[in-house]
Amino acid sequence: MNSNHTPLGPKADKDSVRRHNLSLVLRAVRDEGETTRAGVAARSGLTRAAVSSLVEQLLESGFLSESGKTFSGQAGRPGTVLRVTRSGPAGIGVEINIDYVSVCVVDLAGTDRVRLTEHLDNRGAPPSEVLARGARITARTLESAAEQGLHPVGVQLALPGLVSGGTVRQAPNLGWNRVPAQAQFARALAGLRPDSPELPVSSDNEANLAALAELWFGGAEAGGPGAPRTFLYLTGEIGVGGALVLDGELLRGAHGFAGEIGHVVADADGPACRCGARGCLEQYAGQSALLRAAGLDEHAGVPGVAELERRARVGDAAAVSAIERAGTMLGRVLSGAVNLIDPDAVVLGGIYRELMPWLSPAADRELTSRVVSDLWPPDSGRLRPSSSAGDAARGGAALVVQGVLADPVAYVRRENLTDPPD
Amino acid sequence: MNSNHTPLGPKADKDSVRRHNLSLVLRAVRDEGETTRAGVAARSGLTRAAVSSLVEQLLESGFLSESGKTFSGQAGRPGTVLRVTRSGPAGIGVEINIDYVSVCVVDLAGTDRVRLTEHLDNRGAPPSEVLARGARITARTLESAAEQGLHPVGVQLALPGLVSGGTVRQAPNLGWNRVPAQAQFARALAGLRPDSPELPVSSDNEANLAALAELWFGGAEAGGPGAPRTFLYLTGEIGVGGALVLDGELLRGAHGFAGEIGHVVADADGPACRCGARGCLEQYAGQSALLRAAGLDEHAGVPGVAELERRARVGDAAAVSAIERAGTMLGRVLSGAVNLIDPDAVVLGGIYRELMPWLSPAADRELTSRVVSDLWPPDSGRLRPSSSAGDAARGGAALVVQGVLADPVAYVRRENLTDPPD
Repeated sequence: MNSNHTPLGPKADKDSVRRHNLSLVLRAVRDEGETTRAGVAARSGLTRAAVSSLVEQLLESGFLSESGKTFSGQAGRPGTVLRVTRSGPAGIGVEINIDYVSVCVVDLAGTDRVRLTEHLDNRGAPPSEVLARGARITARTLESAAEQGLHPVGVQLALPGLVSGGTVRQAPNLGWNRVPAQAQFARALAGLRPDSPELPVSSDNEANLAALAELWFGGAEAGGPGAPRTFLYLTGEIGVGGALVLDGELLRGAHGFAGEIGHVVADADGPACRCGARGCLEQYAGQSALLRAAGLDEHAGVPGVAELERRARVGDAAAVSAIERAGTMLGRVLSGAVNLIDPDAVVLGGIYRELMPWLSPAADRELTSRVVSDLWPPDSGRLRPSSSAGDAARGGAALVVQGVLADPVAYVRRENLTDPPD
Repeated sequence: MNSNHTPLGPKADKDSVRRHNLSLVLRAVRDEGETTRAGVAARSGLTRAAVSSLVEQLLESGFLSESGKTFSGQAGRPGTVLRVTRSGPAGIGVEINIDYVSVCVVDLAGTDRVRLTEHLDNRGAPPSEVLARGARITARTLESAAEQGLHPVGVQLALPGLVSGGTVRQAPNLGWNRVPAQAQFARALAGLRPDSPELPVSSDNEANLAALAELWFGGAEAGGPGAPRTFLYLTGEIGVGGALVLDGELLRGAHGFAGEIGHVVADADGPACRCGARGCLEQYAGQSALLRAAGLDEHAGVPGVAELERRARVGDAAAVSAIERAGTMLGRVLSGAVNLIDPDAVVLGGIYRELMPWLSPAADRELTSRVVSDLWPPDSGRLRPSSSAGDAARGGAALVVQGVLADPVAYVRRENLTDPPD
């Protein structure tokens, strides 16, 4: 969605020009929601004749659909209305987290079309079993998608750890070390669907994909074009995940491991962390630490967090002070990150969303007092809950769709292999 | 130096294509050091005929020079050797810091040609006086440059504070608040050179410009192409400056204030900082804090740092432990930054260069124990002193030169206004 929105010059070879322009037209229709050939020409800078020919190919390949009704909200003569198809190529995102698996299918328009979430405990089980479980949930979701005429062209795995080249280098909260998750998952999924062509699988850190979902889908909620393009994204889970979006692009870092804010030191003399260091942010603001500090069972999971929120709401002192303490430590670490990165906003997702009434004032106080030169005025609104419109599974699915939009031709053949267009 | 290295397609209008290609040719010659027309054609992808015509224009406008000797180290028939001119358009960088002003003129080849540094105390004086002093030093440097046939086309100011839109929002160590430094400096410089056309002045944070100098000139020392493209740059001065270079680009942040690592919290309960917060890194690793901790006069400046180094070298316990303490706090804050950004390297400049023997092991210990997943192995060499080849003044001057290289035509007229080409 950051691709170049101008036609390629004629110097490029004819085939690449046409592929590029097909993508340009497809994205123009997707961005407009519904439009006419004239609207596409205006938006893309291509001639009407070129647009007509490209639209024809996209209709034939099943990327666009057309309705008879005319459309007059636009300059030029009215035409039939074009939309991206609601069936056909799609993306599937699979978040395998510590206490849930969530799978999401997104269509070409970016709409969340199928969602299957199972709450379970992935700790303690061998990685291959967890991945096989994820594959089973994915296979069921693919069945639902097929019933809707949707054919995901690729799977994006979202995992709570350091992910690089298909391998989870480390996911301390799952107890994983150097697990070739992508290959194991792909094998398990292929085994469950012996009659279907194998789907390509990619993998990334879950906070990275959740941050992309926030970037792409959070805008509507946060107020459209004003939504931040440079932000730090934190997600409170069993651990604390983080990601950095700089001017609309995910920062991956030199080794693909940027965003590990959960292990930024909050207090050098603090409690020992699973990572081997002391006083990491996770030891104050991770789910287990929060529950423990509030006098709850640290393994109580989602119901535990709901209970924490309930207690805070009725003024339970231990609950409120546990959340405020987490907020102070969050604010302390965030102030350093803000001094370093100078983002538009800090977005808090995961369990932090529900805890904002107590978390946010404490964190904001630290930010206000520690960010240089009054750059973080009190109650600036720049510390905000994540949108409910996006999560790692949807971000992953949308990343797959982005690949289709960038080069639809590459997916025509694969599409034809799986099923004839409906 | 990050501009597009391919010819524009013929769709762009003729004038822009020619300007773009002139830049392409000029940069090709600059990057090669010396080359032939055939070499430029090979590097740029332009035809030999186009290269010949473009080279002719660059020779006439005084951007390139040509020598009679043939050059046979390259494929194709030998030709006369092309170089960027050693006279003519140049850049000038002016670093106004707390206890020195340093001015540097860089020619089109990137060579440091004139340097004038004055050690003085800029604290306490009104900003206008400090800027007028800087302008006087700049005017003297311009005289030396003119004697060498160099004509800077613009001034880049480097200032130790939060700089945005020509204004120093805050420079606590100078005691500046909302000082319109760029305009004041430009006025003072114009007043000193009533018979010369006014030079355009830009301004930026000094650590940003020093980081660019490290990126552009540090490579040769650090081992050429292996030099890091994603790094965190820290400079120890009276304060602690910082900048982030991500894949060869400076991160400016949403408001232009990224990189303020000196005010990242090292110990939340630490001493009060000038910025209003407590326990900022500057309170442990800034020059004054270091000197004070070693039992030296915190206002002793450069001689004080030399004395600190001398004492550490002879094993003075107070000196060694002051530097090691600073190293530990640096390492603590850096570990957070590394977890967040995942850079290739951390580069320490300013006073840290000389203190590396004591600073680096302490900082490296913290990094090794706090960076996640053994991503910072002991003695990795990724914590390194800055190159001596670059500093903020040279980085600033090179930034001006970059503008000339990107569009030489824009500078022909200005050049002709100041002086006929020699």
